[in-house]
Amino acid sequence: MAKSIVKAPPLRIGVAGLGVVGSGVVRLLHERAASLSDRAGRPIQVVAVSARDRRKKRDLPKQSSSWRWYKDAADLASDPEVDVVVELIGGADGIAKRLCETALKAGKGVVTANKAMLAMHGDKLAALAEKQDVPLAFEAAVAGGIPILKALREGLAGNGIKQLHGILNGTCNYILTEMRETGRDFADVLREAQALGYAEADPSFDIDGVDAAHKLTVLAGLAFNQKVDFKSVHVEGIRHISAVDIAFAKEFGYRIKLLAIARRTPKGIEQRVHPCLVPAGISIAHVDGVFNAVAAEGDFVGKVMFEGRGAGSNPTASAVVADLVDIATGRSSLAFGVPATKLSVSKSAAMADHVGRYYIRLIVKDQPGVLADVSAILRDHRISIESLVQRGRAEGANGSVPVLLISHEAREADMARALKRIGKLRSMQEPPRLIRIEAP
Amino acid sequence: MAKSIVKAPPLRIGVAGLGVVGSGVVRLLHERAASLSDRAGRPIQVVAVSARDRRKKRDLPKQSSSWRWYKDAADLASDPEVDVVVELIGGADGIAKRLCETALKAGKGVVTANKAMLAMHGDKLAALAEKQDVPLAFEAAVAGGIPILKALREGLAGNGIKQLHGILNGTCNYILTEMRETGRDFADVLREAQALGYAEADPSFDIDGVDAAHKLTVLAGLAFNQKVDFKSVHVEGIRHISAVDIAFAKEFGYRIKLLAIARRTPKGIEQRVHPCLVPAGISIAHVDGVFNAVAAEGDFVGKVMFEGRGAGSNPTASAVVADLVDIATGRSSLAFGVPATKLSVSKSAAMADHVGRYYIRLIVKDQPGVLADVSAILRDHRISIESLVQRGRAEGANGSVPVLLISHEAREADMARALKRIGKLRSMQEPPRLIRIEAP
Repeated sequence: MAKSIVKAPPLRIGVAGLGVVGSGVVRLLHERAASLSDRAGRPIQVVAVSARDRRKKRDLPKQSSSWRWYKDAADLASDPEVDVVVELIGGADGIAKRLCETALKAGKGVVTANKAMLAMHGDKLAALAEKQDVPLAFEAAVAGGIPILKALREGLAGNGIKQLHGILNGTCNYILTEMRETGRDFADVLREAQALGYAEADPSFDIDGVDAAHKLTVLAGLAFNQKVDFKSVHVEGIRHISAVDIAFAKEFGYRIKLLAIARRTPKGIEQRVHPCLVPAGISIAHVDGVFNAVAAEGDFVGKVMFEGRGAGSNPTASAVVADLVDIATGRSSLAFGVPATKLSVSKSAAMADHVGRYYIRLIVKDQPGVLADVSAILRDHRISIESLVQRGRAEGANGSVPVLLISHEAREADMARALKRIGKLRSMQEPPRLIRIEAP
Repeated sequence: MAKSIVKAPPLRIGVAGLGVVGSGVVRLLHERAASLSDRAGRPIQVVAVSARDRRKKRDLPKQSSSWRWYKDAADLASDPEVDVVVELIGGADGIAKRLCETALKAGKGVVTANKAMLAMHGDKLAALAEKQDVPLAFEAAVAGGIPILKALREGLAGNGIKQLHGILNGTCNYILTEMRETGRDFADVLREAQALGYAEADPSFDIDGVDAAHKLTVLAGLAFNQKVDFKSVHVEGIRHISAVDIAFAKEFGYRIKLLAIARRTPKGIEQRVHPCLVPAGISIAHVDGVFNAVAAEGDFVGKVMFEGRGAGSNPTASAVVADLVDIATGRSSLAFGVPATKLSVSKSAAMADHVGRYYIRLIVKDQPGVLADVSAILRDHRISIESLVQRGRAEGANGSVPVLLISHEAREADMARALKRIGKLRSMQEPPRLIRIEAP
């Protein structure tokens, strides 16, 4: 920093939360201080932090001795020498939300990675920021280091977005990739992911799709300039994906991915997170391991896709710091692309009206008449079968065999009713499972 | 537009060049006027244009009757009611450069899609823009609709970029994709591409790699904060790629792509454009047809990749308009990421020092001793062979057969000397060809 001659006063940062991401942010700000100062036209300096335990061992730069340390994060909002609060505490409500609101009301900018909070209160926080004329930025909240929010908000500003879809949860993508590459079953791979630190001790937030749904809500708000609408997202996770599904998908030229999809449809905005069979030939099928990707379709730009690391200390820090550089240069923009007063309340399309192709897995007793029963029920619900595979006898325990089928286009409501009836057949050994087929 | 209540005065645009891209820009500004005004906080209005022939049939909006039409593009720079000049004329020097310089000197912002000009004069134009305190923006110059410059400049501002590589020329990528999918030879597919409008009547600029090299120069300037250095780019095109190469690549799990690569190395900055064998499993191998992609590696974010349409009226217009929205909101940034005075003059790494693996194609007379001669020469130059394929007799005319081999890591200078000697063997029916193997 000594070498850069900068006249503008530094941008003074208060960091709430010194966990994995917070430590990455202060390290990045420290290591690249000179370059950041060149880019921003002024230094960006951490002046205050808040963490539950000050004495916890952390790898912090020497300057940390001069920081003001607060036990209560809310105190950052009232520190007169903090220009911008970086909120890295997490949680939709509670202390994180209180801190952000207080900081905005105190005329401070806010940078946050908190997707849960944004998925619930994003438009209200944006309105507050605009009223106070201070920046609210959250690039790190979605897809980690990939600058997807900036791309949608600024880089594609000329476009009406028709649809977007993405792989937004690295834990799920890691598990599905491992399952495909090793042939192992879900529970087994999950345990390994937990041991490696890719999955939490309580993994439900990730593997049940909630985390991806939070991120999708933020993306959809920005892409469609609508108020965030988490409750309209149809969410399914990956707990029920089995090695049988993965093997079948492979054989038929598909890969299984947990996709988050938002689309404009004639019936409203569709928002959904669920496992999908995607054709192995398309780009997003090759986004593997802990990587994330977001693909979008604009009316002028056509299809674009962005891929990168969706989590981790350094990639997330990269996104937080990009927001800080924007703020330091005065390059702020509207949180959801347009003024908060102009965000629409969109009609949401009902999942029951979704039309698509389906993969269905049935585990049945290997006895005569099962296929006749199943196909009669499908016919009754106007569902026609494109292909069906039944493998040799007694593959499973108790003489059960998997019957795997792919339907032609069908309505979700019809499919749900048919599967409910099929599930009641005496020959069914497990509940029927469906995975939607998508070639977005 | 009627519905948006906007107090700020409009941003007044003068468009130089009403060809494919210029018409797209004008159409986008017209069709999405209300949305753009919401995003920019003020209307963006075309007030003047320049085109060689006013009477040429164009699909222009009604408002075009009120535009001021100039025969000489330079007049846009002196029109006091033009705030920003959009330069879509093209060419490294001549009228395009004169227009941009005059406009900047007159205190007007400049948006340009002119990669040739930027590859030659980018840093000088940036210095002029900074001196005049007006914006210079050129998102459309590289990779069409993909907002890659914004991503590198702002979205990844916290990162030191180690390397980047991309598919930057849609014509070449279309030709190589067609060759792979149909097995046809280069000349045949080129003719078809010309008929379809994907290749120019004189295609040399594209297929000889010059266009990609211009774009790489701009990307490298931005990624490494260096003065543009087009003359240091090692450039090879795709004229010599044959159906034999494509077939071999396929068989051995590779795809052939024209990559543009820029890397920091201990010997300086490496900038090169040439065909590559890339492993079929990596993301960039799946970027097909007219699509472009840019992958970058930052020290914090890790690897990211951006994919989309690299050319065409609408995608390019999307990029131009994104720049205009940025300017309208006052969200300008430094053209090459840091102040022009801080752009470095980098040492460039010599191609002779490049170390990598090579694919070599020899077309030889089918007679005893050829392989012995070839392998002796390779050994003399310390090049060891990883694999070698010689197919059945008399595949080509005159009893000639292809000998295809892949080397272990070797130095470019050694490889060049070896191939020179091999080329002089009497058994050679065609000059030896090499394609570098990259797994970036």
